[in-house]
Amino acid sequence: MIVLVDPQMGENIGAAARAMLNFGLTGLRLVRPRDGWPNPKAGAMAAGASSVVDNARVFDSVEDATADCGYILATTARQRELYLPVYEPGEAMAEIKPRIDDGQTCAILFGGEKSGLNTNDISLCHGILTVPLNPAFSSLNLGQAVLLAAWEWSKLAGKGERFPSRMDDAEVPTQADTDGLINHLFAELEPSGFFFPPEKREVMERNIRTTIKRAGFTRADTQLMRGIIKALARGRGAGRAASEE
Amino acid sequence: MIVLVDPQMGENIGAAARAMLNFGLTGLRLVRPRDGWPNPKAGAMAAGASSVVDNARVFDSVEDATADCGYILATTARQRELYLPVYEPGEAMAEIKPRIDDGQTCAILFGGEKSGLNTNDISLCHGILTVPLNPAFSSLNLGQAVLLAAWEWSKLAGKGERFPSRMDDAEVPTQADTDGLINHLFAELEPSGFFFPPEKREVMERNIRTTIKRAGFTRADTQLMRGIIKALARGRGAGRAASEE
Repeated sequence: MIVLVDPQMGENIGAAARAMLNFGLTGLRLVRPRDGWPNPKAGAMAAGASSVVDNARVFDSVEDATADCGYILATTARQRELYLPVYEPGEAMAEIKPRIDDGQTCAILFGGEKSGLNTNDISLCHGILTVPLNPAFSSLNLGQAVLLAAWEWSKLAGKGERFPSRMDDAEVPTQADTDGLINHLFAELEPSGFFFPPEKREVMERNIRTTIKRAGFTRADTQLMRGIIKALARGRGAGRAASEE
Repeated sequence: MIVLVDPQMGENIGAAARAMLNFGLTGLRLVRPRDGWPNPKAGAMAAGASSVVDNARVFDSVEDATADCGYILATTARQRELYLPVYEPGEAMAEIKPRIDDGQTCAILFGGEKSGLNTNDISLCHGILTVPLNPAFSSLNLGQAVLLAAWEWSKLAGKGERFPSRMDDAEVPTQADTDGLINHLFAELEPSGFFFPPEKREVMERNIRTTIKRAGFTRADTQLMRGIIKALARGRGAGRAASEE
């Protein structure tokens, strides 16, 4: 669950909701949203994710918002004087995942745009989440921070769906397919004078063989290549090509 | 290097530049930016990352923009008819990293806001990068897609810097520190009648011992706990406390 503490702009609440829903997260809690709640700007920005905004619960304090939580992480970009473990997003999700699987309610807190979480709020948490950034330019906004957390959560929770590679359907060539291609090529190169001088032939053949083996052709690719070789050889002269057909 | 193909809004080019620089990426190329170049809106949005925008190179075609590249991935959210391997962001960076280390120039292509990359542009690439999203809500914008790619790159390239946990400085308690705390507690519990009935004492002591061992106290924590025990015990009666001091 994502808890936004003292969020200021409704647009940023909406952006956080979109980032969440992109990766299958829906539980949003707000502590003291500056411009009140509901906030039409949040709904407008959330667009397709407005269900997340509509179902957001509002609280007066971090204590209330996290009262049912068994594990809470605070997101911050600054070193604090607190003795708490510090996790990068992926590490944080590795802490959270087994607890969720165990039935615990877990929360990640994000502070407001202006100054982030205060140290008192962080002291209510079990650990700190931080995103390692370029020290010369570290300006992640609220929506981006939520996006990275949601993305890392989705990776671990296996929530996202991706389309498969067409390569997954592709038939792998047998050794006979590949050797057929290689021998076809050698046979067509023979009359072209390519294998010169003759004593280099063995090395040249070996180089061609490894190049083709390494290429990761599909079975259809080997057939395509044989068609190409045939066409190129035919190009040497219409007379010869005609006699071959 | 990040290549934005047919980007439309300058603001999104600026947001991409910010996302890049947050994770230490600076090489930006643009193919046919709709509103021309330079675009003041890109610079304004980029703010502290305007150096990335200022140094962006503009090309008329994907071919020109990637002519010096040894390895190119195309970002797309849709299945294509192309037989290319498909990588999630982390997998994509695992393909790119050794090639960069080997001195190759590598590019990741992102299409424009409206329709993404066309299939011809993707066919110029060595593979496809896709972000697994919630199938019921998949609406990653250009800046967010670049952010996730840059983040995954940074993780592998070790570009980001994070602050250390204060826990890293904390002294670990010795067995003597922890046993001192436990025995101190037992000694103070003894006169309070806590260990009752007497036959349960062994189990009760064992439970307390494992609870404390499990707590992950620092050395300072064990001292803090002893101070707390002392204060609680003193609270039983000023007379007894005074005689102990």
